[in-house]
Amino acid sequence: MKTAKLLISGSEHHADMLYISGLFVPDPFIVVGLEVGNKTTWHGLLSPLEVDRAKVQSKLDEVHLDTVWHNKAKDKGWQRSLSTTAAAFLQEHQVKHITVPADFSFLYAQELIALGFEVIPSPASLFPERVIKSEAEIEQLTKAEKLTAQSMLKAEQFIASCGISNDGMVTFPKDHEQAGEIVTSEAIRAVIETFLIGQGAVPSHTIVACANQSADPHDMGSGVIQAHQPIIIDIFPRLVTSGYWGDMTRTYVKGKASDKLKHMYQTVLEGQSMGLDMVQAGVDTANIHNDITTHFDNQGFKTGMVNGKQGGFFHGTGHGVGLDIHENPRVSSNGAILEERMVITIEPGLYYADIGGVRLEDLVVVREHGCDNLTNFHRTLELK
Amino acid sequence: MKTAKLLISGSEHHADMLYISGLFVPDPFIVVGLEVGNKTTWHGLLSPLEVDRAKVQSKLDEVHLDTVWHNKAKDKGWQRSLSTTAAAFLQEHQVKHITVPADFSFLYAQELIALGFEVIPSPASLFPERVIKSEAEIEQLTKAEKLTAQSMLKAEQFIASCGISNDGMVTFPKDHEQAGEIVTSEAIRAVIETFLIGQGAVPSHTIVACANQSADPHDMGSGVIQAHQPIIIDIFPRLVTSGYWGDMTRTYVKGKASDKLKHMYQTVLEGQSMGLDMVQAGVDTANIHNDITTHFDNQGFKTGMVNGKQGGFFHGTGHGVGLDIHENPRVSSNGAILEERMVITIEPGLYYADIGGVRLEDLVVVREHGCDNLTNFHRTLELK
Repeated sequence: MKTAKLLISGSEHHADMLYISGLFVPDPFIVVGLEVGNKTTWHGLLSPLEVDRAKVQSKLDEVHLDTVWHNKAKDKGWQRSLSTTAAAFLQEHQVKHITVPADFSFLYAQELIALGFEVIPSPASLFPERVIKSEAEIEQLTKAEKLTAQSMLKAEQFIASCGISNDGMVTFPKDHEQAGEIVTSEAIRAVIETFLIGQGAVPSHTIVACANQSADPHDMGSGVIQAHQPIIIDIFPRLVTSGYWGDMTRTYVKGKASDKLKHMYQTVLEGQSMGLDMVQAGVDTANIHNDITTHFDNQGFKTGMVNGKQGGFFHGTGHGVGLDIHENPRVSSNGAILEERMVITIEPGLYYADIGGVRLEDLVVVREHGCDNLTNFHRTLELK
Repeated sequence: MKTAKLLISGSEHHADMLYISGLFVPDPFIVVGLEVGNKTTWHGLLSPLEVDRAKVQSKLDEVHLDTVWHNKAKDKGWQRSLSTTAAAFLQEHQVKHITVPADFSFLYAQELIALGFEVIPSPASLFPERVIKSEAEIEQLTKAEKLTAQSMLKAEQFIASCGISNDGMVTFPKDHEQAGEIVTSEAIRAVIETFLIGQGAVPSHTIVACANQSADPHDMGSGVIQAHQPIIIDIFPRLVTSGYWGDMTRTYVKGKASDKLKHMYQTVLEGQSMGLDMVQAGVDTANIHNDITTHFDNQGFKTGMVNGKQGGFFHGTGHGVGLDIHENPRVSSNGAILEERMVITIEPGLYYADIGGVRLEDLVVVREHGCDNLTNFHRTLELK
């Protein structure tokens, strides 16, 4: 009796599907990895709408029209479902034991179990090897991060060119068609995103959060940009053609930062430097996270509830980046051992409702003795 | 013993999660709907990173810090998982029977079952009522489609302004910085997408497919744009703030279309008009799809394999649009009964490897006696 791996998902938002098929498909389709000895042969079952494109563009070993297998399932008297279509294919190939990703549909699993299959969920991704990137994947991530850094430069230059109104608002520069009007998060986001989209990278929910909005790490930001207040800019676009992500964050102030904010910025900068210096194969990410947290504590930046809100450093130090924007390994107190060619962010931050937030984020490739920084971009707090 | 609904997903790409929480969260979080009598109270369990934002921005009735419940699960000796965190919350609220969406994680379901819960998958969405849109939702879809149509106009005007080279390629207009160079799919895509992103809508995989590429309905298109050949443009951006989608398609020719292509365009145009005329509450979508298919057959445009490739009309006539770009109801041979305030596309198409493709797509709201067309945009084949 043979075993198989089974996936049923669209591939635009399911990294395992994209990883194994190499094909963007919006709606769920079937992928089966038939295991014979040490060899796995990857089969795709696709609708008439997708099958010809899959034959040309996909990385799958064999591509089949799903209606053929749907009709075989129908002939057996099974109800119409992608799970029964997959079952017909699996049965014809004498498969009884199936491994699926952790997030495989519970309904499909139940339907397959009812037809006599043994269905085993993997602990997380069906391809844990995705954490280690090939050189081809690193090339894509490098390309994505380079565009991300270029878009950050556009934002930085734009803010630097702006003015400050008498009541402390950031205003469009003199040569701009909106000269003198107050700049908004939306306007800065447009500067970043129009650049990226023209370069074949899709940004989404780019964070441009000022003042009290910056105290919330995932607030996208909206409305007016104030001078002399922190502006967190977090950019994470996805390459249209390959699906790999970039990810970086900088924090700026237009005008002058308060001494308290300068101290906070300096502390995050030191924390990030410590973290980046620690990255190399063999290191436990819990040590990185805990050392940064200790440094923040020592500088007087405590983590915990302040007036009923989260304050301090209350997110992980980083995460893997690949076909998912957030993937393993995690750089957090839970720990994970770094290996060569993992690609991770180092992005400590501090957030307090009364000061705002500071976060600095770089993307790096883990190497035997250190890391390659793909972001490679300066850190400047004040833009005059 | 109480019952509950349970969801564990990120909300950016899980429409049920976004529908019930009203909050964009990239990573998986827990939502529980506690059912008491006829009333369901919606609870969110969110990480320190998201919890304060959720309290302000979400539609949930109550928002809790997930670490509290994670620690309770830990005290019970349960392994670390979002499923055990949810289990601790459910147990404290005397819940034993849980309904989950069809695509609920099989691993989480197994973990919950092992802890003694009964877990029942719904047939598809946990909120089938999502197919009927509220007026507030229709307003968002109207806004999204209006931007989509405006971006189509930008593309159309750009192509109209272009020239044609001696060897039949479309070239940038005289006043353009790339004047005389050959226009590509990528260049037209940039015209469309830079407009959309500046308006707060995120486009992704916008289709600009010319000549033989247009014969494949989901080919994104790349490279040079030829004159006198069909160009399919399919635009489907998502509003950043609300998550609702627009969706429309037009087919153009720069220069002169062949008689065969003109006949194909006219036939698709008639098919779409027939479909739009049939849309109203109470109609079975299978009738719409089958009538269009019959019309295509009668005009000599058969569906089936041609030289080993799909030819003719081999996709559904349309689909629901909301927080998902493809959702119920489907307008296909499987059928579905239309109800008032469903929002669907009508997008017949014809595709042959030797001619290319033609598709026309509008987005409409089903009404008692007919439909409201949200696209409301002309159909022109030839751009001189």
